Amino acid sequence: MRTKKIADTFVSRTELVLPNDTNTLGNLMGGKLLHWMDIITAISAQKCSNRIVVTVSVDFVEFKSPIKLGEVVILESKVTRCFTSSMEVKVDVWAENLQTEEKRKSNSAYYTFVAVDQSGNPIPVNQVEPESDEEKELYQSAMTRRELRMILSGRMQPSEAGNWRKIFGI
Amino acid sequence: MRTKKIADTFVSRTELVLPNDTNTLGNLMGGKLLHWMDIITAISAQKCSNRIVVTVSVDFVEFKSPIKLGEVVILESKVTRCFTSSMEVKVDVWAENLQTEEKRKSNSAYYTFVAVDQSGNPIPVNQVEPESDEEKELYQSAMTRRELRMILSGRMQPSEAGNWRKIFGI
Amino acid sequence: MRTKKIADTFVSRTELVLPNDTNTLGNLMGGKLLHWMDIITAISAQKCSNRIVVTVSVDFVEFKSPIKLGEVVILESKVTRCFTSSMEVKVDVWAENLQTEEKRKSNSAYYTFVAVDQSGNPIPVNQVEPESDEEKELYQSAMTRRELRMILSGRMQPSEAGNWRKIFGI
Amino acid sequence: MRTKKIADTFVSRTELVLPNDTNTLGNLMGGKLLHWMDIITAISAQKCSNRIVVTVSVDFVEFKSPIKLGEVVILESKVTRCFTSSMEVKVDVWAENLQTEEKRKSNSAYYTFVAVDQSGNPIPVNQVEPESDEEKELYQSAMTRRELRMILSGRMQPSEAGNWRKIFGI
Amino acid sequence: MRTKKIADTFVSRTELVLPNDTNTLGNLMGGKLLHWMDIITAISAQKCSNRIVVTVSVDFVEFKSPIKLGEVVILESKVTRCFTSSMEVKVDVWAENLQTEEKRKSNSAYYTFVAVDQSGNPIPVNQVEPESDEEKELYQSAMTRRELRMILSGRMQPSEAGNWRKIFGI
Amino acid sequence: MRTKKIADTFVSRTELVLPNDTNTLGNLMGGKLLHWMDIITAISAQKCSNRIVVTVSVDFVEFKSPIKLGEVVILESKVTRCFTSSMEVKVDVWAENLQTEEKRKSNSAYYTFVAVDQSGNPIPVNQVEPESDEEKELYQSAMTRRELRMILSGRMQPSEAGNWRKIFGI
Repeated sequence: MRTKKIADTFVSRTELVLPNDTNTLGNLMGGKLLHWMDIITAISAQKCSNRIVVTVSVDFVEFKSPIKLGEVVILESKVTRCFTSSMEVKVDVWAENLQTEEKRKSNSAYYTFVAVDQSGNPIPVNQVEPESDEEKELYQSAMTRRELRMILSGRMQPSEAGNWRKIFGI
Repeated sequence: MRTKKIADTFVSRTELVLPNDTNTLGNLMGGKLLHWMDIITAISAQKCSNRIVVTVSVDFVEFKSPIKLGEVVILESKVTRCFTSSMEVKVDVWAENLQTEEKRKSNSAYYTFVAVDQSGNPIPVNQVEPESDEEKELYQSAMTRRELRMILSGRMQPSEAGNWRKIFGI
Repeated sequence: MRTKKIADTFVSRTELVLPNDTNTLGNLMGGKLLHWMDIITAISAQKCSNRIVVTVSVDFVEFKSPIKLGEVVILESKVTRCFTSSMEVKVDVWAENLQTEEKRKSNSAYYTFVAVDQSGNPIPVNQVEPESDEEKELYQSAMTRRELRMILSGRMQPSEAGNWRKIFGI
Repeated sequence: MRTKKIADTFVSRTELVLPNDTNTLGNLMGGKLLHWMDIITAISAQKCSNRIVVTVSVDFVEFKSPIKLGEVVILESKVTRCFTSSMEVKVDVWAENLQTEEKRKSNSAYYTFVAVDQSGNPIPVNQVEPESDEEKELYQSAMTRRELRMILSGRMQPSEAGNWRKIFGI
Repeated sequence: MRTKKIADTFVSRTELVLPNDTNTLGNLMGGKLLHWMDIITAISAQKCSNRIVVTVSVDFVEFKSPIKLGEVVILESKVTRCFTSSMEVKVDVWAENLQTEEKRKSNSAYYTFVAVDQSGNPIPVNQVEPESDEEKELYQSAMTRRELRMILSGRMQPSEAGNWRKIFGI
Repeated sequence: MRTKKIADTFVSRTELVLPNDTNTLGNLMGGKLLHWMDIITAISAQKCSNRIVVTVSVDFVEFKSPIKLGEVVILESKVTRCFTSSMEVKVDVWAENLQTEEKRKSNSAYYTFVAVDQSGNPIPVNQVEPESDEEKELYQSAMTRRELRMILSGRMQPSEAGNWRKIFGI
């Protein structure tokens, strides 16, 4: 087991929006973007754990503005925090029009992966150490996001969710 | 504007897991499943609104058990509730091993779509009327899921979120 | 060996017509539809036999009306009759325009599969028992369709084809 | 309107069987082959008519031997006969193992296309003139295959089907 | 080890340009064509060596005229010369507009492959014997193209490159 | 017309090698990599010119070591020099095994693009100004690579190729 820098888990990927990625309006389909985000975050989780990883969950994802056919999509991902055998990975997505150079934020998302052995059983993972202020903030807030996942999947009672109780002023 | 039965928005789809859908362990990649879920829920939303629809968001999705190469995936979706120009769609996913006939629940997810005109501007949608007990329950709980979306996207303060305040015992 | 209900072999699938599925006129290519029909009928045959199956043949298929980009295609398949190690599967195809709610029959087709073991050798299959009138009619007429297959593949002389001789008034 | 040589409609295509083309046994799926056959026969029909063409039907197709992952598939197609606005195209398919040089016939099939204008309406097509003995034989037998298509699609009564009546010894 | 005719390594392939193969102008992307050329030349090299082959290099490729959506691309490849365990393969590419029957040369390219055993180690290959004048010319000039490859990959000094020294008049 | 920094044309992309990208040995096919390299270099050329671009040529590409199924491929591209309406783009490719963290250089390549207007006619492009030593070296050597392209495409006589004459000691 090692402790890694978050930068060592960084992955970037530029995609070109092709006809089959789009709906009848010529906009990138949300599901295709979710697929691209899953691949890049899985690579971040593999860079962290040096293991095969399995997608456990994806948090609430909101698509703010349409991305058009012929535009490019830039995805950047990094591990934010590791737990025993799972890892939270954040991906940021931008769209860019190469004619106008206009680049706009599309969305962010948090994927969770678990590292597995060849039989598919979970195994302990390397840990990450946050360095920059942004990394530290994400490392801290990972606990709050994790609490919500546990509430939503029925593994934690709202009464036990300390961070969310605080958010609701309790 | 019409009021439709939820059954009129029902869509089912059986997919076969092919090599390119899988990771190195021969398991269906989560992102591919998210893509399939997006397509089928978009069709439900189009059946409801008779309009082109755009994916607005997907709620927390958890993948419970791996789905193997050669297994089939059954997806079933239906609109649960409509708002002014948006619709919440639920998709249920099962995996089935055709040799053993073992069929197991993989996961559920809620996608939100907005209906748009040819210029991409939101337009009002048809409403749905729940009939069965399950449909009524989903129709009711849609408000709670919507509150969480609004909190997570920063469009609502936790102090305004009546349903979630109740969940947290306030 | 078991006897199954035909309903246990039922499979449905809704497809969205994407750009790469279409020709220069924006119509779904016949070959793509033949591919989709093969996958869904193979799943029906696997549900019946609980075995890996191999496509043996497809009967005459006629495409009656063009299906446009952005429309959806609904495929429904079920086993009609089993023989020693082969199964006949019927697939019905509809096209639907989600804006107008117009749903029209596109075509039907009969695929034949044989169940095989891991070495690819044919093995006996479960049988199906027809229940509804439509199932009984399809179960009966399967013999006539099979005769034509045997004539066309040179495994039967027209003089031995009792059902077809009757059709030709002999 | 012109009269063309059948050789002018000849198209060949060598395909490599890739993982996504195969089933769990590593054999080429029948539906994928039907898709490849449709594309190549459509090109033959376009070479004949110089028009956009639409698949009207495919006759009975039988798959005789499995084709394995990594093998190549050779497809060769040509128009056999033209009618007013439709064309019959024959495709022959071989499989070849590049290690052993064993090349075996897989199957043949007859596809029918209609030439259409930009609005999708049928238009008259060029005719073909058979030259070799094989071309003449195919040109002749096209009428018999056409009769069967008309019977199977309900456009002709068996009592009117002169060629098939002869086959059945009437 | 055998000596083969160059005609025994000949492969042809007709491709239809589909939406996902094109850029925003509706022209075939160069990279897609490079991919198609790699597959067909690899098949030629396998026909020559009866072995699994690995792409070693591709020489300078120039794309002379755009190929449009809906046009067909005809690729023809053959081995030009074999070395110890490597083979040079030439591919010629034409584009054809099926409406106008205009067929124009797009480009040629030379790919080099090495034959490998199951562990991926290079193994000796069959040789080819040129017969026609064109085959003899290509067989001869293969040495000059090989020299340039060795210079460009740093495996030969320009001072040792006899053929190129001659070209530069030394 | 503007002068841009080379860094403004930088694009990176991490790809995961999936089953359909590989040959029978489980190695990434060269043609697939050529396709990925074409897409990323085209994006660099579009970032430079803010125009639709068309691939004109690709220089000699050598594939040094096999890349395996499940490994990742990192591609990084940037414009090296602009001419009147064409741009030379360099792409560097690495392969990385995520289990062992071994990262190795796969290859480099130079693609040339021309910027075009909506009718496909060449138009003048922005220029780039090299800053770092590596950028300056690439900017200089671009003239030598261009000379070779012109010789190989028959647009320049070896006797006029000053840089190559120097290389050959003339």
